[in-house]
Amino acid sequence: MDWGLLDRYAKSLIKEAGHKIRVSFFSEIEIDSKASANDLVTNIDRQVEQFFIRKIKNDYPDHKILGEEGFGDVVRTLDGVVWLLDPIDGTMNFIHQKRNFAISLGIYVDGIGVLGYIYDVVNDELYHAIKDGGAYLNDERLPYLSSIPLSEAIIGLNASWVAPNQYMDHKKTIELVQSCRGTRSYGSAAIELAYVSTGRLNSYISMRLSPWDIAGGMVIASEVGAVATNLKGEKQQLLGQDTFIVAVPSLHKDILDNYISLKE
Amino acid sequence: MDWGLLDRYAKSLIKEAGHKIRVSFFSEIEIDSKASANDLVTNIDRQVEQFFIRKIKNDYPDHKILGEEGFGDVVRTLDGVVWLLDPIDGTMNFIHQKRNFAISLGIYVDGIGVLGYIYDVVNDELYHAIKDGGAYLNDERLPYLSSIPLSEAIIGLNASWVAPNQYMDHKKTIELVQSCRGTRSYGSAAIELAYVSTGRLNSYISMRLSPWDIAGGMVIASEVGAVATNLKGEKQQLLGQDTFIVAVPSLHKDILDNYISLKE
Repeated sequence: MDWGLLDRYAKSLIKEAGHKIRVSFFSEIEIDSKASANDLVTNIDRQVEQFFIRKIKNDYPDHKILGEEGFGDVVRTLDGVVWLLDPIDGTMNFIHQKRNFAISLGIYVDGIGVLGYIYDVVNDELYHAIKDGGAYLNDERLPYLSSIPLSEAIIGLNASWVAPNQYMDHKKTIELVQSCRGTRSYGSAAIELAYVSTGRLNSYISMRLSPWDIAGGMVIASEVGAVATNLKGEKQQLLGQDTFIVAVPSLHKDILDNYISLKE
Repeated sequence: MDWGLLDRYAKSLIKEAGHKIRVSFFSEIEIDSKASANDLVTNIDRQVEQFFIRKIKNDYPDHKILGEEGFGDVVRTLDGVVWLLDPIDGTMNFIHQKRNFAISLGIYVDGIGVLGYIYDVVNDELYHAIKDGGAYLNDERLPYLSSIPLSEAIIGLNASWVAPNQYMDHKKTIELVQSCRGTRSYGSAAIELAYVSTGRLNSYISMRLSPWDIAGGMVIASEVGAVATNLKGEKQQLLGQDTFIVAVPSLHKDILDNYISLKE
């Protein structure tokens, strides 16, 4: 496999998809809800996923595609080449804000992330990485992340995880909020992974993410020295929902050891 | 007073200050802390405030200036023309992210907001309003905000207000988090007021803000039909810290009536 060629191919699809999304701002968007009232999807999410699938199936017919909107393959294993795609990560922001969403794409080979992309469409900021080849914002290399103590760290953490919830002891989460420098919440895992990868956030934590939310960002974060696992500290499982934390190693360990207590 | 002239004058100062801030990205920033370890200030905050004060004192010597960094006047009443200025609202973001901060400026006459500005420096987005003259993003008029039920509303609310705190019953805040469509937190009151004024957020709530954080944004929000008060539902007091909520009237009332319980 010529990874450089696949990288250029993926980028060209992402840029074309971004253009389609920007054009969609000029027409009425159709909004539906999925599993719950606040789990939103639009005709644009669907059209963009279908665009990717049509292209990839034509040009790389042996690759598998796991897409958020379900138009791809039924993927039961990560054997071979698998594209993990979220055509619009942060659909609620896309609808309400027309910003703060991204195209998120990871290309994995036998379960290993080889190429990763986060495209902040509105800001025309493309974050990408090739395994062992570094991470980039547009074409500028992202520096390796420095260690930072929790007391100086800004953490991406939504208020809903500080309220009592089914996933973890929220009292420990409250201690985390009170021990760090500050928290932020942007409503898109891909955007928050891009923020961690550029040091704008020092960690991002979520109780429930899907493979397509994080597959691209994990490749990028890894190339700048961040560690991404589930909240048990185990390798992220990429065939279903899981908990999530990403941070530089010392902060990752501090948070997991001292501020996360999962219910089970 | 020629308000059109003062508006053009204020805009030219803001744009020049924004340029100074962008240029500062190319040199080392000096960081100090103020009242607490996480209450940060930089040499750039100070320089930008001093730039404004020097200009205003020269050109409008009878105007008073209340600035975050304390180089302005000792302002004990809002009589006359008072400039309420935060040279960099979101200093922590300025330091950590080099984005998501703003210049915030309100010009008040006898306590009434007449001109308001929020300048998102990095995105070159200037929000402004003239009392009874409408609100604008760059030079595009912002539409009047529509009503929205809480169940469809996105609220700007930091995780720290969902943790037990000295200001309000956090159990009610938890109910609010669980009753709205979602929460976000951007770490700059001015940016969050700009978001509410453009409908990207439907409300923004904070337990502790200073006059310069909100003076500009309140003029803008008012011109698109939002109501801003403290969390008792009273007129914001602009000579000291206060609680804060902004939203369209029906949502403002719903949140205050049903989800805010202040400790006193």
